[in-house]
Amino acid sequence: MLNKIGILNKKELKSILVSLEDIREEIDNNKFEITNEGLHYTIENRVIKETGIDCGGKFHTARSRNDQIITESRLYMRSELLKTMELILDFNKTLITLGETYIQTIMPGYTHIQHAVPQTLGFWALAYADSFLRNFDRLREDYTRVNMNPLGAGSSYAVSYPIDRILTTKLLGFNDIHENALDVVNSRGEMEIEILSDLSLIAVQLSRLAEDLILWSTYEFRMVDIDESYTMGSSIMPQKKNPDVCELIRSSSSTVFSHLLNCLCVLKGTPSGYNRDSRETKSAFIKGFDIIKSNLDMMKGMLDTLKVNEKRMYDLVTKNFCCAMDFAMMFTTLGLSFREAHIITGAIVKESIERSLVLEDVTPEMIAQASYKITGNTINVTENLIKEYANPEKALNRKKHIGSPAKAEMERMIIDRKKQIESKIKDLKTLEICIEKAETSLQTKVKIIIEN
Amino acid sequence: MLNKIGILNKKELKSILVSLEDIREEIDNNKFEITNEGLHYTIENRVIKETGIDCGGKFHTARSRNDQIITESRLYMRSELLKTMELILDFNKTLITLGETYIQTIMPGYTHIQHAVPQTLGFWALAYADSFLRNFDRLREDYTRVNMNPLGAGSSYAVSYPIDRILTTKLLGFNDIHENALDVVNSRGEMEIEILSDLSLIAVQLSRLAEDLILWSTYEFRMVDIDESYTMGSSIMPQKKNPDVCELIRSSSSTVFSHLLNCLCVLKGTPSGYNRDSRETKSAFIKGFDIIKSNLDMMKGMLDTLKVNEKRMYDLVTKNFCCAMDFAMMFTTLGLSFREAHIITGAIVKESIERSLVLEDVTPEMIAQASYKITGNTINVTENLIKEYANPEKALNRKKHIGSPAKAEMERMIIDRKKQIESKIKDLKTLEICIEKAETSLQTKVKIIIEN
Amino acid sequence: MLNKIGILNKKELKSILVSLEDIREEIDNNKFEITNEGLHYTIENRVIKETGIDCGGKFHTARSRNDQIITESRLYMRSELLKTMELILDFNKTLITLGETYIQTIMPGYTHIQHAVPQTLGFWALAYADSFLRNFDRLREDYTRVNMNPLGAGSSYAVSYPIDRILTTKLLGFNDIHENALDVVNSRGEMEIEILSDLSLIAVQLSRLAEDLILWSTYEFRMVDIDESYTMGSSIMPQKKNPDVCELIRSSSSTVFSHLLNCLCVLKGTPSGYNRDSRETKSAFIKGFDIIKSNLDMMKGMLDTLKVNEKRMYDLVTKNFCCAMDFAMMFTTLGLSFREAHIITGAIVKESIERSLVLEDVTPEMIAQASYKITGNTINVTENLIKEYANPEKALNRKKHIGSPAKAEMERMIIDRKKQIESKIKDLKTLEICIEKAETSLQTKVKIIIEN
Amino acid sequence: MLNKIGILNKKELKSILVSLEDIREEIDNNKFEITNEGLHYTIENRVIKETGIDCGGKFHTARSRNDQIITESRLYMRSELLKTMELILDFNKTLITLGETYIQTIMPGYTHIQHAVPQTLGFWALAYADSFLRNFDRLREDYTRVNMNPLGAGSSYAVSYPIDRILTTKLLGFNDIHENALDVVNSRGEMEIEILSDLSLIAVQLSRLAEDLILWSTYEFRMVDIDESYTMGSSIMPQKKNPDVCELIRSSSSTVFSHLLNCLCVLKGTPSGYNRDSRETKSAFIKGFDIIKSNLDMMKGMLDTLKVNEKRMYDLVTKNFCCAMDFAMMFTTLGLSFREAHIITGAIVKESIERSLVLEDVTPEMIAQASYKITGNTINVTENLIKEYANPEKALNRKKHIGSPAKAEMERMIIDRKKQIESKIKDLKTLEICIEKAETSLQTKVKIIIEN
Repeated sequence: MLNKIGILNKKELKSILVSLEDIREEIDNNKFEITNEGLHYTIENRVIKETGIDCGGKFHTARSRNDQIITESRLYMRSELLKTMELILDFNKTLITLGETYIQTIMPGYTHIQHAVPQTLGFWALAYADSFLRNFDRLREDYTRVNMNPLGAGSSYAVSYPIDRILTTKLLGFNDIHENALDVVNSRGEMEIEILSDLSLIAVQLSRLAEDLILWSTYEFRMVDIDESYTMGSSIMPQKKNPDVCELIRSSSSTVFSHLLNCLCVLKGTPSGYNRDSRETKSAFIKGFDIIKSNLDMMKGMLDTLKVNEKRMYDLVTKNFCCAMDFAMMFTTLGLSFREAHIITGAIVKESIERSLVLEDVTPEMIAQASYKITGNTINVTENLIKEYANPEKALNRKKHIGSPAKAEMERMIIDRKKQIESKIKDLKTLEICIEKAETSLQTKVKIIIEN
Repeated sequence: MLNKIGILNKKELKSILVSLEDIREEIDNNKFEITNEGLHYTIENRVIKETGIDCGGKFHTARSRNDQIITESRLYMRSELLKTMELILDFNKTLITLGETYIQTIMPGYTHIQHAVPQTLGFWALAYADSFLRNFDRLREDYTRVNMNPLGAGSSYAVSYPIDRILTTKLLGFNDIHENALDVVNSRGEMEIEILSDLSLIAVQLSRLAEDLILWSTYEFRMVDIDESYTMGSSIMPQKKNPDVCELIRSSSSTVFSHLLNCLCVLKGTPSGYNRDSRETKSAFIKGFDIIKSNLDMMKGMLDTLKVNEKRMYDLVTKNFCCAMDFAMMFTTLGLSFREAHIITGAIVKESIERSLVLEDVTPEMIAQASYKITGNTINVTENLIKEYANPEKALNRKKHIGSPAKAEMERMIIDRKKQIESKIKDLKTLEICIEKAETSLQTKVKIIIEN
Repeated sequence: MLNKIGILNKKELKSILVSLEDIREEIDNNKFEITNEGLHYTIENRVIKETGIDCGGKFHTARSRNDQIITESRLYMRSELLKTMELILDFNKTLITLGETYIQTIMPGYTHIQHAVPQTLGFWALAYADSFLRNFDRLREDYTRVNMNPLGAGSSYAVSYPIDRILTTKLLGFNDIHENALDVVNSRGEMEIEILSDLSLIAVQLSRLAEDLILWSTYEFRMVDIDESYTMGSSIMPQKKNPDVCELIRSSSSTVFSHLLNCLCVLKGTPSGYNRDSRETKSAFIKGFDIIKSNLDMMKGMLDTLKVNEKRMYDLVTKNFCCAMDFAMMFTTLGLSFREAHIITGAIVKESIERSLVLEDVTPEMIAQASYKITGNTINVTENLIKEYANPEKALNRKKHIGSPAKAEMERMIIDRKKQIESKIKDLKTLEICIEKAETSLQTKVKIIIEN
Repeated sequence: MLNKIGILNKKELKSILVSLEDIREEIDNNKFEITNEGLHYTIENRVIKETGIDCGGKFHTARSRNDQIITESRLYMRSELLKTMELILDFNKTLITLGETYIQTIMPGYTHIQHAVPQTLGFWALAYADSFLRNFDRLREDYTRVNMNPLGAGSSYAVSYPIDRILTTKLLGFNDIHENALDVVNSRGEMEIEILSDLSLIAVQLSRLAEDLILWSTYEFRMVDIDESYTMGSSIMPQKKNPDVCELIRSSSSTVFSHLLNCLCVLKGTPSGYNRDSRETKSAFIKGFDIIKSNLDMMKGMLDTLKVNEKRMYDLVTKNFCCAMDFAMMFTTLGLSFREAHIITGAIVKESIERSLVLEDVTPEMIAQASYKITGNTINVTENLIKEYANPEKALNRKKHIGSPAKAEMERMIIDRKKQIESKIKDLKTLEICIEKAETSLQTKVKIIIEN
């Protein structure tokens, strides 16, 4: 570009590019040493040393470390966004597979970690799948704002040379120009915060998933068994198999939040135009990506290898009144209002607990007495009806509406989500091809210049 | 809906609606008292009292406080999102107007609160305008995810009645169904975090704008004068005019962050399915909206009434080497590389400071000597050339590229941004009409039922 | 004081005090209305209105709203600190009582929520007791820094009148003068942060205690039963008994953190001397105290009424290899190194799990085989020895060192902690008497002046 | 200790110590490689390899990685606390020296970054000195809680061997035993949070000091000049001298907060007993110390080399009504109430601004007219009186009370603070000697065993 606008002639351009290619090779081979002045000066000084001050001295024309660093950050961000989005889709496939495999694996649906109503393990997996689709969408929206060309913003107020920002936009594979120079520099930290916010939401959801697994793998729950490659023993207790990886995922979510908070707090109240403060936001977003990528990968591995104790799950559903809500519904089908039904069922559950009965054991007589005591009327139900409403499979499949854990509805959602994932994979592919094309084209141009 | 699926007959529906309309009227007149059991039970008990347990007892059929609260939150969020988006566009208009008014008002462009290069006050305003357009876009993206119907999720695992979620979606003006019931309940807090993240970014930017005004209105800067309606006196110092409103905006930005952090930290590691913890997120997002709406409004008012000291701004530009970078550029037009030019200019600036000169006072002799000392060659420049490159207007208009503070480029951006704002206004209008239609239609239906 | 230094004569002092006493009475009766100008101006204007500008106009001499607000904050803080410290000691008594009651109630000691080794419920309670003694100490240290007289700092730079700060220190019951006027004003927020930090630690510990109770009261753990006054039912699930209060305590801990963070972030980077920003810290610390006081109170109530399922606790200890570490120790008493013993025990545990045995079922033959396989030597143990090392009571009482859950050691700690609590109660009493004396003395002086 | 309680015989003890000394030497020479199993296992395996499983296998008897890590953390914390406390006292000396040097350097006292009343630069420095004395006290209080021996807590529930915790307490130089084993493990993170809270307060105050310097070194303020070793140039603007180090200190304060928040959020809601989560708190407190130590050091250097523009400071005081409050006081000495005086002064200031006068220029006539207009009475003052009350030196020395910026009072405070610092230095020395003695004694014992 500097050649096109007349700052560098062809010969100078070639010399500088040759020098830069050398440096790139050294970096690739870990041979390049950065001096105290920082990376940008080190490179510039090296170029000057190799090509002379007349030529290499022009290298930094029409740019500032500020817009260069922002440009580099954006290139890094877009690459990390693409990688993370890919990992999310991979992770989603694992969740959908769980949804399919355990579509009929009945387990307690918990609220407050207390048994509420029956659900299936597949339904649980599909719920997370949907939330990760939203996570994907958020990062995708970030991508559009990130992939804008900041080069040319100078130190904050544009540059005095007639630079061609459309050309650099194409060369670097950006989808558009981030125009106002001061806005570009002010936005340092903004993109970082935007990304860290969305990574924080991912962290929250992974931490909740980790908590589910931690609980379910206790001796008391015994519903799942985490593969040994994701647990650790104890240095003094020979019997231990601790869910360390889950705890790591749970706790590192806080670390992501703390990076987000750091960026917000760093930027707050800084005056417009570049301030050194914004530099703190760089390591924050890099570390945020590293944590989330690693956690997505580990969680996927854990779910892929999870052993499920279906028998224990079913046992728990039948032992602790998970179908009480359906029992109440039974009464509404007999003409009672929901509130009355709720009160009567409550009384029956209480009596059952005192007498150590489960819901299946409830008799027509108990119901008749309870209803009489509460409403003054006796309700008569058959034993068959009781069995029907105390049965978890029937309870599940009674839920026919959109978004319910009934088998047919789950099958519909699985097919739909698979389609959504496919379409998102295509979209990612398109973005990647765009960047590759720009990179190849840039390398070809460099090669032609160097070789002529 | 309960009528359509056969839970309520027409008569029951009418009784319940009549009772609810009464309650609504009482609420509007501040006559409704909530008992200890919470709002939902209070309303239900009142309906039961008025319509009898047979009828009113059916009122809570096929719903849970959980999905009701989520539904109410979403309705509130979408309304607040619309209001905030409108305020952003209003605020943007103010910024664009500043951009137009002060398009040629030259002032120092700061980095590190040190003079860097000339900018204009208009350019500064346009930079903020662009960042607030992105703020708008983020909230707009949130809106799409928020305006999904959660009703029917029950306590977390759907309901046993064959509810019609498509109907409730239409009745309440949602744009789609939030399907998976467990995902709906798990998402409590997620939408809150998403919104608070975006409000936090707005808070950051408002705090930076406030900081600019606080600095610029000090005695030392004296570049702007904040209107008295936004400043406060002192109880003991008669001369004081303190920028309290700016300080309020600056400090309340932290409060928004702390609400965001609270939500993240509350949700972290909670198991899936409803937990009471998520309730903490409700007041957080409500307060977040309140702060941002109020701050946008106050900041707009302050900018609308801001007095600008254009003379002082120009003075500062000429007194402290703001055009040094252009001076360096001057040398590059004479064939020196940028790095050499940078070093020579540095020497000249240093000499000028020691001799208490400003850039305009630099003589051809000083330049000749400095260049000789550094490069071994003498550079000859005319006095006219010096004047040209020491002149801030010329410095500004030399910057011809996209996104620069040159007048023509700013004019182009102003026209473009006005168009963008117009199109966003239209988009908002469409969203509002959608909701209004749904509300009117719902009210009409209720009226017809009640009056028949 | 203003009288003593000659600003007010006796008559003026009396008029102003009479007027202030009227205002106090109105405030006590909720009849006092604060105007838009804020509390301080409202009071001053009222005093001026009643006593004339000649007299009442002197009311604000030698003070600023700044130092007045700081003084009021300190008075409030010290009162809240005292209340919170008292609640902590009350809470500690509950924990010590639990320690005594359940000193021999054996339960699994958890790490990673996996069974580790046997502990007792009493030991668990005593652990929390010790941490709350440290919480007390931290607040006590804060108290010393808080109870310093800031009055006289003026707006930030002292006042021009020869005020007597020793006199106001005595009148208001402060223990010393906070000297440097600028430091006083700069410290606004500092005390708030110091207190909120310590409240945050309390919040953390309460949240962990709440989590223990939430887990232990699940159907799967069934180790404790939370009293109904601290649980809630469900609007649709008749069988539910949810640990809402625990969840509230757990989640509101985050709210305390967020107030702390808010204060830190608000103060960060504000220049020295008063800035309006610091006002945000006032509501933060007030809310922090409110949350912690309420949570301490609720948690105490919950523990006081907790039903403990001792049988279930003991069952869990025997069923899942809690004594494996002692088993390993058994081998070290026979001459094996700890590491060898650890490996052999690991092998035996693995075999037992595969064969569905508990530790008590392990036979001398199994041990002989396992040791031979691993070390090449056969270890012979008697059945009696196995029983001894598989027995949880014996495991506990084998731990004889300081700080262990052996009965004798726990008894020693209980006696010691009771003494510590007694001594802290005395210390609090002394502080309270100090303040009361100052208040009584001040009121007497006011009364004498008014009545003369 | 393991020897004393009979686990290791003398020969075994010697072998293990020899092996450990070898390892220590390798670590010192950077030759020791840690395997994947972590540091503790690597060392144990190496000891076993060198001394045989019979002997080295006993190495880990009666300990757990948990209590070892906590012990190591405490040793590290106490060492870092000592270093940081020393740095604070050094820093305090710099502040006191500034206080002495600039005891009479008059400058504007700012509130809201607006001129309030005159202060001196020395007074400003002494204000920070006092706040750092409190910072010292807080860390000193932490030290007492930190320097407690956690060894023997085992994995969370003590160990089965009759360990001698009094002996290890002495050997490691702790001042007491941290008793309850579960409390020890639960306290992981607690000490970290306590320390990070206090470091956060230091960070806040350093950030405010940095902000003062950033503002004062702008072209607009020009009150101080930061030494070039603490500023940076620009890659494209030759005239720049940016306060990068101040910005670094300002922004890294947020990083300290974020580490604090991370620890709070990590621990929140984790159940009692060890959880892997607490590991995240280790790097947090280490980084916290690193930032604060480095920032204290840099800030001290900056203040030691700061150039002060005393003339500019004085100019600013006289030009912008800094003495208005004293002017109001003048009227109260003539019998007006403070509120009347305040209003009259306000009117005079307003008129002066309109007529571009400074306070010294105000005439008796202006005062007479203003007072007549407002009170109906004419106040007569002499020109001499006006000069006296418009004079900043006189304004300062009129403030005679404790904690004011009058010269005599500042001198008193300087002497007092120097004494406080001396006594704190002695206290630190005592603590250091305690640790050194324990270390020397331990090394001697090891040497004797190895050499016999």
